[in-house]
Amino acid sequence: MKTLPSLSLAGIIITSLLGCQSSNLQYQDNKTSHQLQQSAVNSNLGYDIVESLTVEVGPRLAGGKNDLVAVKWAEDKFKSLGYDKVYKEPVKVPVWSRGDASAEVVSPFPQPLVITALGGSVATPENGLTAEIVRFHTLADLKKAEPAQVKGKIVFIDQKTERHKAGNGYGKSVGGRSKGAIAAAKKGAVAIVIRSIGTDHDRMAHTGAMRYKDGIKKIPAAALSAPDANQLNAILKRDKKVVISLKLSPQHLGYSTSYNVIGEIKGQNKPEEIVLIGAHLDSWDEGTGALDDGAGVSIVMAAGKHILDLPTRPARTVRVVLYAAEELGLIGGKQYVKTHKNELNNHYIAAESDFGAGYIYRIDVNVAPQKFEQVKNELSSMKINGVELGNNEAGGGPDVSMMPSLGVPVASLRQDGRDYFDYHHTPNDTIDKIDPKALAQNIAAYTQFAYLMAQSTTDLRPIKKK
Amino acid sequence: MKTLPSLSLAGIIITSLLGCQSSNLQYQDNKTSHQLQQSAVNSNLGYDIVESLTVEVGPRLAGGKNDLVAVKWAEDKFKSLGYDKVYKEPVKVPVWSRGDASAEVVSPFPQPLVITALGGSVATPENGLTAEIVRFHTLADLKKAEPAQVKGKIVFIDQKTERHKAGNGYGKSVGGRSKGAIAAAKKGAVAIVIRSIGTDHDRMAHTGAMRYKDGIKKIPAAALSAPDANQLNAILKRDKKVVISLKLSPQHLGYSTSYNVIGEIKGQNKPEEIVLIGAHLDSWDEGTGALDDGAGVSIVMAAGKHILDLPTRPARTVRVVLYAAEELGLIGGKQYVKTHKNELNNHYIAAESDFGAGYIYRIDVNVAPQKFEQVKNELSSMKINGVELGNNEAGGGPDVSMMPSLGVPVASLRQDGRDYFDYHHTPNDTIDKIDPKALAQNIAAYTQFAYLMAQSTTDLRPIKKK
Repeated sequence: MKTLPSLSLAGIIITSLLGCQSSNLQYQDNKTSHQLQQSAVNSNLGYDIVESLTVEVGPRLAGGKNDLVAVKWAEDKFKSLGYDKVYKEPVKVPVWSRGDASAEVVSPFPQPLVITALGGSVATPENGLTAEIVRFHTLADLKKAEPAQVKGKIVFIDQKTERHKAGNGYGKSVGGRSKGAIAAAKKGAVAIVIRSIGTDHDRMAHTGAMRYKDGIKKIPAAALSAPDANQLNAILKRDKKVVISLKLSPQHLGYSTSYNVIGEIKGQNKPEEIVLIGAHLDSWDEGTGALDDGAGVSIVMAAGKHILDLPTRPARTVRVVLYAAEELGLIGGKQYVKTHKNELNNHYIAAESDFGAGYIYRIDVNVAPQKFEQVKNELSSMKINGVELGNNEAGGGPDVSMMPSLGVPVASLRQDGRDYFDYHHTPNDTIDKIDPKALAQNIAAYTQFAYLMAQSTTDLRPIKKK
Repeated sequence: MKTLPSLSLAGIIITSLLGCQSSNLQYQDNKTSHQLQQSAVNSNLGYDIVESLTVEVGPRLAGGKNDLVAVKWAEDKFKSLGYDKVYKEPVKVPVWSRGDASAEVVSPFPQPLVITALGGSVATPENGLTAEIVRFHTLADLKKAEPAQVKGKIVFIDQKTERHKAGNGYGKSVGGRSKGAIAAAKKGAVAIVIRSIGTDHDRMAHTGAMRYKDGIKKIPAAALSAPDANQLNAILKRDKKVVISLKLSPQHLGYSTSYNVIGEIKGQNKPEEIVLIGAHLDSWDEGTGALDDGAGVSIVMAAGKHILDLPTRPARTVRVVLYAAEELGLIGGKQYVKTHKNELNNHYIAAESDFGAGYIYRIDVNVAPQKFEQVKNELSSMKINGVELGNNEAGGGPDVSMMPSLGVPVASLRQDGRDYFDYHHTPNDTIDKIDPKALAQNIAAYTQFAYLMAQSTTDLRPIKKK
């Protein structure tokens, strides 16, 4: 856990920061930013919100039975917090039901394995499926394999996910989860199991979305917990022929309607211009979605509330968007840019919180390169909250990741995610994994960011397209 | 993790210890003890044994399908290690099969709960059982309750288990698990769920043995993971009437025959006198029984092997006993004292390793009070391994706990068990939780203890009866 500057030190820093400001307007904005930071770090509001969501709704898989409970919860919560405008927008989501999952080593050493179905997987035959496993270190190794090596077998992709502050290990290993079934089926595999995309040593498998491809056979796909992947390796060391059985009973049940839920704080000078801060409301079904993404929901909802509590509204509108069905492939995010295509030019900047509740150590942006230093100057009061001013290479977060290509400036508030993939997409994603102090620091950062951007006098466009 | 004296420091300590010894015999024994300690801490043998057991057998519930696989494994392993005599003794064990377990909050906030059946529980009706819960902080509070408060409800005992180096928290909370169903049924409860007896925050429930009583209705009994117990509390805070459903399908399937498996190193001067070091071979069915008690199995088997590797056998016989069905109520331990009742007078001293693989920091004994100082002197070379000489109040370990009342001296080699109840009786009890260095230190301690006691010239009896 990072320690933050003490209050007295923060006072000295803000004084010196304020000394750098030239205009009276900026002086006032920085003073308000400082006050907002203090209110936010000393408030329990965010923790109360994430507790309310995880307790009163719990798991909320998009298209599942708690999905609309969550939508109702979000509307009610925005209203009870006093947002100026609360509404929802329909999003068509696929309905996938997990069913049961079990696996066993059949030979040489019979014993159960802990697995979970990957999100979107088809079922095995009702009585399961039994075959020899063939191990690959990575997806790339599988792609290089001779089909004869794979045909009729269960592919086992065994890549470990490295622990990293910015979560960089995830990107390196997640391809095995999302694309492994396609690669395995192309070579004639009957199923795929992967080492969980996670950094823990718990006997818990990590679920997450996987894809199929038209024209390629859909084969069942599951994740093994890390100790179970280790166990398969130890067995393979003793006997190259390892036979396992798998039984998965997920169901695809068509489509249903979910919603992006939106709360707004109406800008007093430029109400048509929007500072968007978002998170996703849906979660996987096995935990209670505390870190992913109850934390994000509470961060942006509470940040809005701290701005609502100011004596006057900021210049621009702050729009808090709780996206539907992020876990199933950024479905709410993609729908949002369609629904709002005529309004995207009025989106001043956007950011999403979707990486747990670890301390924010840096803010990156993606704005017009010649305005970068000016924006950094406008955001400089975020330093009192332990947030450094970073680079101009931000992606903005999953559900706003399509915005830069549409010309919308974005920001990424970088969280310390070293522990995030210990719990991500497992039953262990519960509220006890959230540090209330770190959550409050996140809220302070989003509050300052949203307020300062709603007051900014800089034109952030055109951004550098990638 | 405790750090151990470095080798050079150990050298100084042993030199000074040896300086205290009067007889040439003790000088030789201490020198051998020192050499044994060095061989043991520098050997991987113990880790190889526990890996072999957890990989090649895996979970091994007494009476379950891997139980006799484990017995065969143990006989083969003793033989391959070159033990002088290997044999097994029948133990009648009950056969209980876990089946499935699921639970849900029905109202006010529908969501799944993570539970596991307690060992020995009866099943719920096939379609489950639904009732309001009534929460008690402890078993004692349940016992004080009015029957009207409990009748027709599902009792929820919510006691937390404190983390403690010597595991003292377990004794305070485990009564809820072992005796809760009796107390709840007496007052008319339809089932019982308890907060897991564990110190972790993982979404994993801890199983463990529970009991019924003749004449009292047998009600289903399960444990909730710690986050699920927290969740019930958070729901109860919002709504006093919380209804849950439980579905458990364990089966009682009569009795079968298991075995205590024994390997001996025959004493060269007093072969009829026995130094017993034991562990239990069975495990619960959800983990692979690495800490409980694969670690103990590997510690005592490897300790024996280090003694076997000496140029000559020690004076007394060292008997390594791997007990059957400890988890189901010390069944193998109780059978052992029956089978060997005519030989107990020849049991010089006994100790069991059954508390994981944390560093041993102290040895306690239970010997004739007037011989206590003499025994401590004989064991003093254990200090080079980081083991302090403790008190004369030892219990000896679960499967030898009945021996002191039968006049047999015992020893307790105290392990640092701070993490033990994080994993105990859960799927998470896997080999990655064992620190190979700590395991080797344990083996060194048992090797020194068994060797020194096999060479001891002290008469340890009569012990103080409790």
